Amino acid sequence: MIEYRNLRIAILGAGSVGSQVAKLLLEHREELAQRVGAGLELVGVAVRDLDAPRRADIPRELLTTDAESLILGADIVVELIGGLEPARTHILTAINSGADVITGNKALLATHGPELFEAAEQVGAQLYYEAAVGGAIPIIRPLRDSLAGDRVERILGIVNGTTNFILDRMDSTGESLHDALAVATELGYAEADPTADIEGYDAAQKAAILASLAFHTSVPLEAVYREGITSITHDQVVAARKAGYVVKLLAICERATDPATGVHGVSARVHPALVPLAHPLAAVHGANNAVFLEAEAAGSLMFYGAGAGGLETASAVLGDLVSAARRHVVGGPGVAESTHADLPALPITAVTTRYQITLRVLDQPGVLAAIAGVFSDNGVSVEAVEQHVGDGQESGPATATLVIGTHEASEAALAATVDALESRNVVDSVESVLRVEGL
Amino acid sequence: MIEYRNLRIAILGAGSVGSQVAKLLLEHREELAQRVGAGLELVGVAVRDLDAPRRADIPRELLTTDAESLILGADIVVELIGGLEPARTHILTAINSGADVITGNKALLATHGPELFEAAEQVGAQLYYEAAVGGAIPIIRPLRDSLAGDRVERILGIVNGTTNFILDRMDSTGESLHDALAVATELGYAEADPTADIEGYDAAQKAAILASLAFHTSVPLEAVYREGITSITHDQVVAARKAGYVVKLLAICERATDPATGVHGVSARVHPALVPLAHPLAAVHGANNAVFLEAEAAGSLMFYGAGAGGLETASAVLGDLVSAARRHVVGGPGVAESTHADLPALPITAVTTRYQITLRVLDQPGVLAAIAGVFSDNGVSVEAVEQHVGDGQESGPATATLVIGTHEASEAALAATVDALESRNVVDSVESVLRVEGL
Repeated sequence: MIEYRNLRIAILGAGSVGSQVAKLLLEHREELAQRVGAGLELVGVAVRDLDAPRRADIPRELLTTDAESLILGADIVVELIGGLEPARTHILTAINSGADVITGNKALLATHGPELFEAAEQVGAQLYYEAAVGGAIPIIRPLRDSLAGDRVERILGIVNGTTNFILDRMDSTGESLHDALAVATELGYAEADPTADIEGYDAAQKAAILASLAFHTSVPLEAVYREGITSITHDQVVAARKAGYVVKLLAICERATDPATGVHGVSARVHPALVPLAHPLAAVHGANNAVFLEAEAAGSLMFYGAGAGGLETASAVLGDLVSAARRHVVGGPGVAESTHADLPALPITAVTTRYQITLRVLDQPGVLAAIAGVFSDNGVSVEAVEQHVGDGQESGPATATLVIGTHEASEAALAATVDALESRNVVDSVESVLRVEGL
Repeated sequence: MIEYRNLRIAILGAGSVGSQVAKLLLEHREELAQRVGAGLELVGVAVRDLDAPRRADIPRELLTTDAESLILGADIVVELIGGLEPARTHILTAINSGADVITGNKALLATHGPELFEAAEQVGAQLYYEAAVGGAIPIIRPLRDSLAGDRVERILGIVNGTTNFILDRMDSTGESLHDALAVATELGYAEADPTADIEGYDAAQKAAILASLAFHTSVPLEAVYREGITSITHDQVVAARKAGYVVKLLAICERATDPATGVHGVSARVHPALVPLAHPLAAVHGANNAVFLEAEAAGSLMFYGAGAGGLETASAVLGDLVSAARRHVVGGPGVAESTHADLPALPITAVTTRYQITLRVLDQPGVLAAIAGVFSDNGVSVEAVEQHVGDGQESGPATATLVIGTHEASEAALAATVDALESRNVVDSVESVLRVEGL
């Protein structure tokens, strides 16, 4: 047996990911040592409560409540606590003590990323975060390394498993959002408080990370437009499928030009969108994630897999751990964040896309012409109109449903159109406005 | 403007990929220099004929027929000639002169990979080959780095765009193999001599590369079992879809245990297979490629994109070029091939999978019992039988078609079963034997 020098690994947090990382590190000790050329010695796992139940067994003597001392004695620190504090302070302590850091903390990166990357660069430490987006799916490394010589144009990501599970249930079983969420909670796909998922906060954090990386630009979380899925109804999902679409919550990052100012920049947004059934993203079912991207030379690429789960996410952490450890063994610089492009983050009003608008209108002559006039007055070009006569179950005047598909239009023009529609007497209500993406 | 030191880049070959790499290097000079921290100076492009037509313009003064001198003056050599020689000699010259090498040459890697990797390791040079498998799709780097801490169990790859295009046409338009191949040739998806694609040689080379990388083991090309798609008929494709499958040419690399010897090892094989319609690989259309893999911790992952094309493949080359160049700027060891696992490559007889066998049998009492007896005599468990009565258009005795699905069985047991079936009087013919994968 070869004798290796040992690298000291500290894990902060023993939740579903942290305990799996600890378990795999201990189980695969020999194999990892061969790959790295050094032993990966787990020196401790920092927890808040020594007696809390763990999903995977960790030897009792490795547990400690003294995170600070653990960090100061480590070569590589794996932060899997989540949240902003004390995670931020721990990571800064690790960096400043010369350790490399691996984290899966999307909230922290989306909020304090630039501060952490700068601290790391100052001392030549490395900060890896493959686990922060897309769980087990390798997406950070492909964006940073594989596409380093290409020019990413657009990213469309299904980056939140909970909402994809809910929307997929609504589509496949006909359940309401409320019932699908209840199933997600029961199966452990949704947390007791599902706000971060269903309101799109989690996806927005990932959008900020992906946009920053793909466009070599620091995109702050506040610049990410965000809409969750809580307004999506079963009727919308059924109508979408009938029209050849499926509803997905997408994180969209793209190069764009603000039509109001002519400024070239980057747009990042999270909202429900209609995806054509033939698009690869439409086939992403259950709690899976996928990141679809378009690059100048590479064309369309998609990365698909489990977006969450303790064991799955632990795979991403271990990949980073091996990279960090190899660097310790053989020296060298590893990775560095690149923000050389420094593009402005554009507001949602700079976005142009296609829309599908569903209106309830009075069922009388001349209505269609009036509606069409509103669109053209606001510079929005109509691609297709479908009319469904009212089902006669309501009292009051006869109504019909109009489903209007537009060509590409700006968010500003679309918003003005919707305002104008709502003020018209022949319009009973604007039932839904959905963006159409992925074409 | 920042002044950078220049790295000297030599390209060997100005075919569809080489000319695009040259074009992108020249067009994106500034942006690449910012990402790398050094200029990437294209010092020359070696060609056989200075006057041959090129798909992308390369300044005449960069062209040279003197590959050797070009190589000796370069920091990084990009080999895009293809074939075994002179590519092998050129790469060895580059390595021994201290240059890093980037290649997309799957035939060379599958045949002389170990020799090249060893030569590179001897002098501390790097050998990158993201473009060798899956064109633009990042698959080499995710396997080598992202999954470095995980344990890959199985890879199912659609790694040949030509055959996927043909099979997809047969499925979607009802064309014969012959007609679909003609369309592929006309559209430029198939070469004048399509043997390497449709007989599975190209896919077998990629299977050898993927298996070697995923299992940290040197898997020689000769150990890859290979069947092409030339025996696939339109009837088989139609029958497959009716049964809920689509026919794909798969490169399959997996850990396996030889039932005859009990030896644990690696199996690599290329053959047409039935893939369930709900599997992500079934949605890979046209000339696209995809690599689906299962890892112990990560679970199922899929990487999808353009598997060929000059511009698309150039993206993968440029990604490698940026990695190699960064290493030149900042030092460090880069990547190293890992063959520490050193598993034996198992023969096709070690494989167990499910099968679908289509038989033409005499339409008379007792036949089904006789057929079922043959399966059980050979230890193959039948999962489902479907019988279609003959269509009456033939002369001779009445026949029926039996489609038999099996549970997992070994290749050896299956081969014995087929032999025994063929010797039975009640069996008119064994029409097809297809493996069922992806479950």
